[in-house]
Amino acid sequence: MNSIVVLKFGGTSVGTIERIKATAEKIIEQKNKGFLPVIVVSAMGSTTNELLGMANQISHNPKPREMDVLLSTGEQITIALLSMALSERGYDTISLTGAQCGIITSSSHQNARIDNIDTSRIINELKNDRIVIAAGFQGVTGNGDITTLGRGGSDTTAVALAASLKAKWCDIYTDVSGVYSADPRKVESATKIDYISYDEMLEMAKLGAGVLHPRAVELARAYSVNLRVRSSFSNEEGTVIGMKNNMEKAYIRGVSSQDDIVRVSVVGVPDEPGIAFKLFKVLSENHIRVDMIIQNLNHNLLNDISFTTTIESINKTKEIVENFVSKIGAEGIKINDSVSKISVIGTGIMGYGETASIFFKTLSENGINIQMISTSETRISCIIDNASSQLALKNLHKVFIENVS
Amino acid sequence: MNSIVVLKFGGTSVGTIERIKATAEKIIEQKNKGFLPVIVVSAMGSTTNELLGMANQISHNPKPREMDVLLSTGEQITIALLSMALSERGYDTISLTGAQCGIITSSSHQNARIDNIDTSRIINELKNDRIVIAAGFQGVTGNGDITTLGRGGSDTTAVALAASLKAKWCDIYTDVSGVYSADPRKVESATKIDYISYDEMLEMAKLGAGVLHPRAVELARAYSVNLRVRSSFSNEEGTVIGMKNNMEKAYIRGVSSQDDIVRVSVVGVPDEPGIAFKLFKVLSENHIRVDMIIQNLNHNLLNDISFTTTIESINKTKEIVENFVSKIGAEGIKINDSVSKISVIGTGIMGYGETASIFFKTLSENGINIQMISTSETRISCIIDNASSQLALKNLHKVFIENVS
Repeated sequence: MNSIVVLKFGGTSVGTIERIKATAEKIIEQKNKGFLPVIVVSAMGSTTNELLGMANQISHNPKPREMDVLLSTGEQITIALLSMALSERGYDTISLTGAQCGIITSSSHQNARIDNIDTSRIINELKNDRIVIAAGFQGVTGNGDITTLGRGGSDTTAVALAASLKAKWCDIYTDVSGVYSADPRKVESATKIDYISYDEMLEMAKLGAGVLHPRAVELARAYSVNLRVRSSFSNEEGTVIGMKNNMEKAYIRGVSSQDDIVRVSVVGVPDEPGIAFKLFKVLSENHIRVDMIIQNLNHNLLNDISFTTTIESINKTKEIVENFVSKIGAEGIKINDSVSKISVIGTGIMGYGETASIFFKTLSENGINIQMISTSETRISCIIDNASSQLALKNLHKVFIENVS
Repeated sequence: MNSIVVLKFGGTSVGTIERIKATAEKIIEQKNKGFLPVIVVSAMGSTTNELLGMANQISHNPKPREMDVLLSTGEQITIALLSMALSERGYDTISLTGAQCGIITSSSHQNARIDNIDTSRIINELKNDRIVIAAGFQGVTGNGDITTLGRGGSDTTAVALAASLKAKWCDIYTDVSGVYSADPRKVESATKIDYISYDEMLEMAKLGAGVLHPRAVELARAYSVNLRVRSSFSNEEGTVIGMKNNMEKAYIRGVSSQDDIVRVSVVGVPDEPGIAFKLFKVLSENHIRVDMIIQNLNHNLLNDISFTTTIESINKTKEIVENFVSKIGAEGIKINDSVSKISVIGTGIMGYGETASIFFKTLSENGINIQMISTSETRISCIIDNASSQLALKNLHKVFIENVS
């Protein structure tokens, strides 16, 4: 059998009938090169919002199982239309829903985890020389109930299929031509990255480089799937994502800023063992994602504990923390939603103190105050005032990317 | 277990969010009476046309299998939304696609036949006291491919489920309050029929009384399903459809007219054995539905063969017949699309010559010429000029319905 390739097209790539036809041409290119394409698609751009709108008119709290029945129709519409477009061009195709692809998931509706994939149907169709069009974002429980995978679902479907089918590669087609050293909308001089490691990409993805969801990158890393990010609007080479890190020296891949975060400070916390643990336990039990954490000892044996979270969970977070404050007798809570997280990403950054010191120096030279710092093997991040976010981003990009290459 | 009832709601009954909520109330009424409701729904009024519109922009001849993948999303959207509406009112429900209902069909896409129903999932859900919301019109092949049932599909799903589940009855909710003695839009004095036999209903349905598809009536007759046609917009009693015929005397149930038919005449056909057979064989092979047939011996050993068919198949019919005419050396083809078929329906009609003679007398008294006649045990039909259709309908209704009751 020829080599299998998995090609994933997102909502904008199939957003209109014209885009579906253009996507069919992209697929035909790969087919004509002798590959066996397995296509993964999302719902058409507007469909999901229309479906959500109808559900909201009926219930403010619809059952997750029924939301999955509803939303999964989005990709089902796309697979049928894309299959028709390929047939119209004379190619033999077959559309398959998540269930028909054999994608078995956990039963946590709206946020299901892929447990395993029975690829026998897909393999059979490929043996009959058909182009397989698979619905992304969805699967089915062992009981036959429809599930959806939640955030990054279609990327995850594509990578999971590539892993199970031992595909030669997995192309993620999107509306940008690859992964950039910074968001091109924010930094004009941003350059496309030709190669990036899984670890670096994971940091980039977590820090808001929207082209790929971290969940899909993690899965690709776990199964060594050859990932590529490409544009569905051009023929440019995209970005290859692979195993190899640059081990020789610190190498900065990119800089990024994230503006959808909030800093929460619990002030005047009594200095007793286990208090921080209790706070973050209750946050985690309520599925609040906490990113950076700082604790400073204050006067009079009172601590200030600060952390960052996403802006969308702020109401719930506020409720939980206020409850916590009154229970442990802390002084109060301060919320600052005019902050940004600014990061540099690259391999071996923390092995070389140099990167951190240049980072801090650049901010300081531009008069930008650092509120919090967090680091990993492949990332340095600072929380700063969001009025300075753009200034910081441009100067860090100049120092770490433009002046180096 | 309490008695199972199957309630089917068509496209207009679930056409908007408001209608879906109103339908939920209808269902709750039955649930509160202690029944175990199994609901069958169609796609929301406009959905199917939107989906067809998208498909047409891609292909004028899409593969039936992919049309089924596309169109089946329509009912899937409705089941999810209706289930949410019932949950919102505090009722435990579960939506099931055709596949999840265990509806196994033949693989003739867009026109599949139900082969059998594995009701175990539905029974389980009913045992858990859940209201089951089933997608009408769709099923799945043994291979797991999605199929749709074609015309009358949702009615057929409802009756098939009622038969398999041994339901107490099967209610078909529609936008009229039952079966009428004539189309109320055409005959103001038309009256609702309280009871009608399967055989009579079958004739009514075939003759264009749009409330029920003949296929569903046939299935109900075969399995003795207690059928009722009711309005989803009012609380009126509807029409009960059952086994019992009135065997005592001819009893006219209703009159109807059908305007979507065409009369096709092949003129100057050589009088050789088997010629008529050849014509109707080739028509049947091309799935042209032929209704009435007349053959008259003409002068010079040439025959005229006339038949009626539906207006939608006229282009294909013309092509086939023209081909036939040139092959057998007939003189030509005449098409008349300004005809109507006018019928009276009732039990034992043909056992009593009286009905036929009153029928013909009524037309003649009104100066209406009869072009063709066809009869069955429960029906007399005539083809007349369609300019006279309304006149014929009103007078037949007066003679057979109003002056009798």
